[in-house]
Amino acid sequence: MSNTFGSFFRVTTFGESHGPMIGAVIDGIESNLPLDVGRIQKELDRRRPAQNEFESQRKEHDRIEIVSGVFEGRTTGTPVAILIRNTDQHSKDYENLKDVYRPGHADETYEARYGVRDYRGGGRASGRETAARVAAGAVAKQVLESKGIAIESRIISIHGRKENFDEVLEEAKRKGESVGGVLECTVKGMPKGIGEPVFDKLDAYIAHAVMSIGAIKGIEFGSGFSSELLYGSENNLPCNAGGILGGISDGNDIGFRVAVKPTPSIAKPQPMKTRDGGIREVGIEGRHDVCICLRIGPVVEAMTAIAVLDQLYARTGR
Amino acid sequence: MSNTFGSFFRVTTFGESHGPMIGAVIDGIESNLPLDVGRIQKELDRRRPAQNEFESQRKEHDRIEIVSGVFEGRTTGTPVAILIRNTDQHSKDYENLKDVYRPGHADETYEARYGVRDYRGGGRASGRETAARVAAGAVAKQVLESKGIAIESRIISIHGRKENFDEVLEEAKRKGESVGGVLECTVKGMPKGIGEPVFDKLDAYIAHAVMSIGAIKGIEFGSGFSSELLYGSENNLPCNAGGILGGISDGNDIGFRVAVKPTPSIAKPQPMKTRDGGIREVGIEGRHDVCICLRIGPVVEAMTAIAVLDQLYARTGR
Amino acid sequence: MSNTFGSFFRVTTFGESHGPMIGAVIDGIESNLPLDVGRIQKELDRRRPAQNEFESQRKEHDRIEIVSGVFEGRTTGTPVAILIRNTDQHSKDYENLKDVYRPGHADETYEARYGVRDYRGGGRASGRETAARVAAGAVAKQVLESKGIAIESRIISIHGRKENFDEVLEEAKRKGESVGGVLECTVKGMPKGIGEPVFDKLDAYIAHAVMSIGAIKGIEFGSGFSSELLYGSENNLPCNAGGILGGISDGNDIGFRVAVKPTPSIAKPQPMKTRDGGIREVGIEGRHDVCICLRIGPVVEAMTAIAVLDQLYARTGR
Amino acid sequence: MSNTFGSFFRVTTFGESHGPMIGAVIDGIESNLPLDVGRIQKELDRRRPAQNEFESQRKEHDRIEIVSGVFEGRTTGTPVAILIRNTDQHSKDYENLKDVYRPGHADETYEARYGVRDYRGGGRASGRETAARVAAGAVAKQVLESKGIAIESRIISIHGRKENFDEVLEEAKRKGESVGGVLECTVKGMPKGIGEPVFDKLDAYIAHAVMSIGAIKGIEFGSGFSSELLYGSENNLPCNAGGILGGISDGNDIGFRVAVKPTPSIAKPQPMKTRDGGIREVGIEGRHDVCICLRIGPVVEAMTAIAVLDQLYARTGR
Repeated sequence: MSNTFGSFFRVTTFGESHGPMIGAVIDGIESNLPLDVGRIQKELDRRRPAQNEFESQRKEHDRIEIVSGVFEGRTTGTPVAILIRNTDQHSKDYENLKDVYRPGHADETYEARYGVRDYRGGGRASGRETAARVAAGAVAKQVLESKGIAIESRIISIHGRKENFDEVLEEAKRKGESVGGVLECTVKGMPKGIGEPVFDKLDAYIAHAVMSIGAIKGIEFGSGFSSELLYGSENNLPCNAGGILGGISDGNDIGFRVAVKPTPSIAKPQPMKTRDGGIREVGIEGRHDVCICLRIGPVVEAMTAIAVLDQLYARTGR
Repeated sequence: MSNTFGSFFRVTTFGESHGPMIGAVIDGIESNLPLDVGRIQKELDRRRPAQNEFESQRKEHDRIEIVSGVFEGRTTGTPVAILIRNTDQHSKDYENLKDVYRPGHADETYEARYGVRDYRGGGRASGRETAARVAAGAVAKQVLESKGIAIESRIISIHGRKENFDEVLEEAKRKGESVGGVLECTVKGMPKGIGEPVFDKLDAYIAHAVMSIGAIKGIEFGSGFSSELLYGSENNLPCNAGGILGGISDGNDIGFRVAVKPTPSIAKPQPMKTRDGGIREVGIEGRHDVCICLRIGPVVEAMTAIAVLDQLYARTGR
Repeated sequence: MSNTFGSFFRVTTFGESHGPMIGAVIDGIESNLPLDVGRIQKELDRRRPAQNEFESQRKEHDRIEIVSGVFEGRTTGTPVAILIRNTDQHSKDYENLKDVYRPGHADETYEARYGVRDYRGGGRASGRETAARVAAGAVAKQVLESKGIAIESRIISIHGRKENFDEVLEEAKRKGESVGGVLECTVKGMPKGIGEPVFDKLDAYIAHAVMSIGAIKGIEFGSGFSSELLYGSENNLPCNAGGILGGISDGNDIGFRVAVKPTPSIAKPQPMKTRDGGIREVGIEGRHDVCICLRIGPVVEAMTAIAVLDQLYARTGR
Repeated sequence: MSNTFGSFFRVTTFGESHGPMIGAVIDGIESNLPLDVGRIQKELDRRRPAQNEFESQRKEHDRIEIVSGVFEGRTTGTPVAILIRNTDQHSKDYENLKDVYRPGHADETYEARYGVRDYRGGGRASGRETAARVAAGAVAKQVLESKGIAIESRIISIHGRKENFDEVLEEAKRKGESVGGVLECTVKGMPKGIGEPVFDKLDAYIAHAVMSIGAIKGIEFGSGFSSELLYGSENNLPCNAGGILGGISDGNDIGFRVAVKPTPSIAKPQPMKTRDGGIREVGIEGRHDVCICLRIGPVVEAMTAIAVLDQLYARTGR
């Protein structure tokens, strides 16, 4: 529970945003599978900040290091451990946030849960933690690809706009604000008959995996929330099932959409609770994303890959 | 995995719609807790079909029988096993469905998964299975109530209508159709600091639990899918968080909405794949719900109660 | 945890010795497997008391009832639930034990753990609970047999005697005493390469399963405790490995021995702690085994079958 | 399963003997606990080879590095990740073993399980892996000590000798042989009422944990295998229970003994199967222990600490 996801293909992550490194341990991977380190690196690069003007200007190099589970380029069946060093963490950026709880962040809830305040940028609750997920997910993706399954995502809406994203992004940036959006994810080449019944239905399991990403506020499969607008005879059409019926894949592509909230860290001053019970207006300086949607795709794909592979292994063994 | 949900408060269910009984085994409950059997029964009665003209006219009596884990009216800390006999199952209703795969149902995917066809109404994939969830959830609810936590749900929309549900229901019935809707669920009295970080965030965990109900196609917390319409400074307001930040409860009520799809079984003839590869037009006779939304509330509440109690126990022990 | 064993082939048991019934829910079994109910019944008959003069004269009929997971004689892949009604429970036998803690029993520790005293013969800690294990194990055995794997056990010593057990049993009975013994268990036809590395080595896993039987005080594989008398070159001979190397089956039969303690319930008066802090001399009347060793074999085999099948499924999927 | 042990206090290990490092990730530790790194290091030093002439002359420095989960000297409640670099691994020592399966080792079974041969000293099956367990166990020990619980072990016999170990060790060394022994472990200050009933009895759980150490071939609690020599009235004395009744601690010290087999790697030539199906006489050169018993104590204590703490947390929450 908690820092481990999966029963058969199991991913455990560790590390805080401002510690020396973060990492992932992958247990249960099949042996004898060629692992392309370059492609794992490429997935991390997709997630990296500072690729355009609307993303955080932090320069996370995120060079991965595989320290176990691979021998002569192939998996051995033992745990694959991946380390990613933290190189560009500015703890001083967080000095002025030491005594306030950032709204929309986990600052206050973590303190309530653990009785500890690690004010250096969120610790485990930081978006930084998702780099380890992307690394593990990149491994899952390679396993899936060896079985003909591919996972892709694309932004379908930002701040209510279906196109011309730059305009809304520029306006938000100018205002010191942030915006959210909706992302669509597709699993292609999914064989029929994968998924567990009852409590671990494939859609429930993917929902768990994907909703565990900090910024995600909702998920819907197939016709989703708009299914109520259809009659039974219409909604029964295969295109509305999202590729899953009764929790088991039906052989079509799996499709779902997720709601990504606006980045809670904004330059514009906002009222924050202070640790001594007061309220203070604070603008969060530093290097934040105008829209986390722009680089959350690899994280959503990674969690989807982990969930799908786990259920595939449940069926086939490792 | 699969027929068990939970790590600390664990619920295992069994039984098919057309077997002699269904049941639930609850492991990990604290000892010395008074258990009110009448109130468990009442939750099952809320879920029972045939309470109005739009619901299936099956008469599920659903009398629960607790066969272990309770001594002199109190829990002993050993597993609470609950049995519910199946009394009104008409296997013959399903005779004409023996050789077709009902669209929107799990008929075809179950056969792909297990290589077996149990044509008698869906087996484990039947809505009947949710009665065992409601029984287990009713136990979880009583534990939660002893700690000041209550769970409620209400329908907020049916077939796109926010009010005057009878009109859309009558029209759907007349057409031999079915309709879906949106349900809202609230957890009241939730203490601050409950929830696991990273992969088992409280919202991800509730999503898993609730999305494992057959008819649910989507879930959103707080501002959910409409958060993209807000700026960061707006979405950061506590009312939009849904009572959970960074996966941990923030002390406010938890609020989420779920999308319920139109019942796939409809009287109106629809094309169905046959087992030998053809297509046949079939209307599903028998006693089906026009709108499952009307009685899915107790199931959503039950799964929410189980998920919330499990994470509460993770924090406090049993 | 606790009332569930296994990750892939999972067994959950419930029920107390003096409640209406006990039962087992088996999750994860492969589908389409013919299940011979008569042979499950036969395993329970082997475990039944009162088969000779040295065994408890309780008449446990133990008629099993399979209420789910089987359709037309074959498994469907859904949970197999088995119920066994309690028919010959004499609660009054336990009236005089209401205020004492029986030595060698779990009376005092259960009260410390749960703050509850169920004085009617031990509740979940009763030997009665093992009937559910035998039923589930009998299912596991049938699955294993379909793969060519058989499990057997035999008594190799009672009260230090390698043969002529009747003599020591008669003497113990005459004295109002009980005796223990050593049992040997063999897994035949085990394929090579089954077992998980590191924490779930096959021998560690079997040890967990078998040591969870109340009366078992020790276990040893292959040369076991006598391996210290051998030099490395001698102990390295395959016959000393017990069929497992590095936690993985080596293709030979798996062999281990377990220590069974003398039944703690004896007719001879013994000092017992009372609930108010005193000491009282009490002889336990009723129908107790002189030597539990005589009918613990089916229980040891059952737990072994469950553990072995679980690890087999880990390798092959279901 | 497999490379993770525990449900509440969870330890995941990774790394091979001849890779760059090994490590452990500890999930579920309580927050705000001071962690003394020096004492973790000390436990590793106890396990280190080459402390006397009978131990392997490898110089494992085993400097631990804690990379997450600790802030300003205290646990934060997030995963504690510990890395230990491999510094003295002589891969060439294993060159001549490339094509043979060492008897008493996991060489052949790992190849059967994974279809891969990592000939460099056993990979995950190497004793090297236990260093990560000792590190994690040292953390568990500190948590336990903060609750008044201490774990100790001592050798009670080597090659059948109760004392004067040097004599048997010298003789074995001279002969190019190895010897085994018996170790006793004690858990002091154990509170009453800890342990799970049925399948996760405290003794069964400790057995699982400890038997997962490669060299351990047997375990017995309290009177263990000699309980058969006692009558019920004798065995019922508290001193024979080993501190656990019905799987729950009874408030006395917990005591058990383990059988440690002779080190399978010996200088004396022994017949080995070759990968092409033949037999070859090979003496294993290099730096091996005459008796692994001399330094297995910290490993046994570590696994015991992890198992006990996990069950303690099950009762109390984190």
